[in-house]
Amino acid sequence: MLTQAGCRERQARLWQRLPDEISWVLIGDSRHVQYFSNFRINPFSFSADQKSLLLLTRAGQAILLADNFAKRSATVPYFVDQEAIVPWYTHKRSVTNRDDALCQALSDIENVWSGETGLIEPEGVSEMVASMVAEDAAWQFADDEDEQPTTLGTVIRSLRRSKHADEVELLKTCMRACEAGHRRAFDVIQPGVSEFEVYLEVQRAAQEVAGGPCIVYGDFRATNAMLHKAGGLPTQYRLQHGDLFILDYSVIIHGYRSDFTNTISVGPPSDKIVAQFEACRDALHAAAAILKAGVACRDLWKAASIVLESRGFGPLAHHAGHGLGLEHPEPPILVSESDDVLIAGDVITLEPGCYIDGLGGMRFEHNYLITESGTEQLSQHHIGLMR
Amino acid sequence: MLTQAGCRERQARLWQRLPDEISWVLIGDSRHVQYFSNFRINPFSFSADQKSLLLLTRAGQAILLADNFAKRSATVPYFVDQEAIVPWYTHKRSVTNRDDALCQALSDIENVWSGETGLIEPEGVSEMVASMVAEDAAWQFADDEDEQPTTLGTVIRSLRRSKHADEVELLKTCMRACEAGHRRAFDVIQPGVSEFEVYLEVQRAAQEVAGGPCIVYGDFRATNAMLHKAGGLPTQYRLQHGDLFILDYSVIIHGYRSDFTNTISVGPPSDKIVAQFEACRDALHAAAAILKAGVACRDLWKAASIVLESRGFGPLAHHAGHGLGLEHPEPPILVSESDDVLIAGDVITLEPGCYIDGLGGMRFEHNYLITESGTEQLSQHHIGLMR
Repeated sequence: MLTQAGCRERQARLWQRLPDEISWVLIGDSRHVQYFSNFRINPFSFSADQKSLLLLTRAGQAILLADNFAKRSATVPYFVDQEAIVPWYTHKRSVTNRDDALCQALSDIENVWSGETGLIEPEGVSEMVASMVAEDAAWQFADDEDEQPTTLGTVIRSLRRSKHADEVELLKTCMRACEAGHRRAFDVIQPGVSEFEVYLEVQRAAQEVAGGPCIVYGDFRATNAMLHKAGGLPTQYRLQHGDLFILDYSVIIHGYRSDFTNTISVGPPSDKIVAQFEACRDALHAAAAILKAGVACRDLWKAASIVLESRGFGPLAHHAGHGLGLEHPEPPILVSESDDVLIAGDVITLEPGCYIDGLGGMRFEHNYLITESGTEQLSQHHIGLMR
Repeated sequence: MLTQAGCRERQARLWQRLPDEISWVLIGDSRHVQYFSNFRINPFSFSADQKSLLLLTRAGQAILLADNFAKRSATVPYFVDQEAIVPWYTHKRSVTNRDDALCQALSDIENVWSGETGLIEPEGVSEMVASMVAEDAAWQFADDEDEQPTTLGTVIRSLRRSKHADEVELLKTCMRACEAGHRRAFDVIQPGVSEFEVYLEVQRAAQEVAGGPCIVYGDFRATNAMLHKAGGLPTQYRLQHGDLFILDYSVIIHGYRSDFTNTISVGPPSDKIVAQFEACRDALHAAAAILKAGVACRDLWKAASIVLESRGFGPLAHHAGHGLGLEHPEPPILVSESDDVLIAGDVITLEPGCYIDGLGGMRFEHNYLITESGTEQLSQHHIGLMR
């Protein structure tokens, strides 16, 4: 989970990026409420689609705004200095429009923001809430007159690139759960088992390690000579000898996610399939070998693609990878025309794949942290068609 | 899943409720985008926290606004006449702020809304999007000058009370998956098994019937003489003889949810526990016996509470139930001071419970549809401490 120290550090970084005249900000994207406070409505709760708000002041105060039922749906500790919680549902009376509760909460702390210059996150704050603070708050800003105006949401997204220590720890928790699913897959995958049954076993193994319900999503699909490209959620298709099962999935714990792949051969693979595997594996290693802060992301794509091409399987037909964190995908983007450059604190994935009509498709993937001094491989699952 | 006919019917009902001068509406709450179009981003996808928009015109047109990755995360068919899909991520170039894609989409269909009088859903449309249409659209309205202004979100919520045939069918799909979990629970619950292990088996059974990943959430907790009230997600606590396992959970399929409870005794129950069970069961039956359109919801609460009281267990310490659909809870609210009255089309739950220090807690629950002519019990699971 995110820590109080981490939340404070992120708030401090945000204030460094905002003009001096801004004395408060109102955040509405649920990912960003969490980023600065660790408050997140658990998707496995009765309040999954509900919103909350976070008001931060330059003086260092963090205030959570929510209804009482949304508050109950945060299942881990969070870090704020004050709460404006509106009793939307009391088990006593009928309810009204739940979103009104957020307006009420904002009204309840009017003394904090009224008359002071504020900035709202226009991507995540609703029109109804924004209209309340319209006299005091802007929704975009520019550091000087020559600059294109930007938004709080854009600034926060740029902060998110460089992960803090608590974020890396949480990502590692996701990795351990994801690895357990990959291990289980080798036990389960055999002719006659359906894609969906594989999913159920992988999901269970991941949740056992996570210690609670969590979202497990991604590609759980068989490919083969007739269907060389398939992705998305599992179907009822039952595996057959010669299939290649692409197991590319994320485990989301408290909003953060792992994302790594292996491809398992149903029965012993042919020589051609082994050659295809070796090309993908070597493409992964080639890109991994040059990971370092300062490297252009398009060069990572090229490093992977050139290996596939040299073996007669290329060029790489999709990205070589992307950033990991609260969103999928998020910067940096490892593609042929990327403008991104790796920085210390990036957590990224590398995932070269190759899909050949008449043969089948496969993909292999590891997750990495870019550090000041080098690279740490975060995922430790076995890469290979067989155990 | 929701049907095209159902989406059209709901749109028609919405237009009947809006002033004649409104020629378009812009909807941003993901539940309401789905309600009118069946477009919903699957929570088991890479776009789970992302937004989409739906623009409806009085002429009967429905236009979906989304980025290309959000579109890919809708895993069932949806029903719109036009799509404004912005290629946010192309596997070729770096990405920018994803929320900008929605503004771009709205700009792309400017010919539809510009110069015409519109109404936005202020609860669900972000400030950034709303600012684009500020000259043409209002965010609240009143039918005449004497009335308090209302919002699109409030109107849609009131429409949601009375379920359409396709919504009832989808709710029944949730019920079947939920029943499977209750059946499995009887196989699993025994001394030594952890609450979390029960959850994993229930989740699996529900998903097997649902045929895909779905959210299973609720109360998966043991109570006993020492802990007579417990709720929320399962813990690692291992069941012991004499525990009462409260299994109160929802299965969410495409946004809609079942919600029903049974309580299972770990080992044979004592006579006192059986008497407590009989009081709860009879309270449930007493409330169910008077279900009918036109009944005051406070009377349903009273009907259940009076039974508990007459057996020495009352009054009922929480709601007697609530509406079911896209939110939890939603109107009608079955509480002592409720102003709600049952209407045809309500889908509700009844869930009297009783929690006695020194004895334990239990709750029993069924879901019902209120029809023009009477009531249909939607949940068919076994209610009882033992099989």
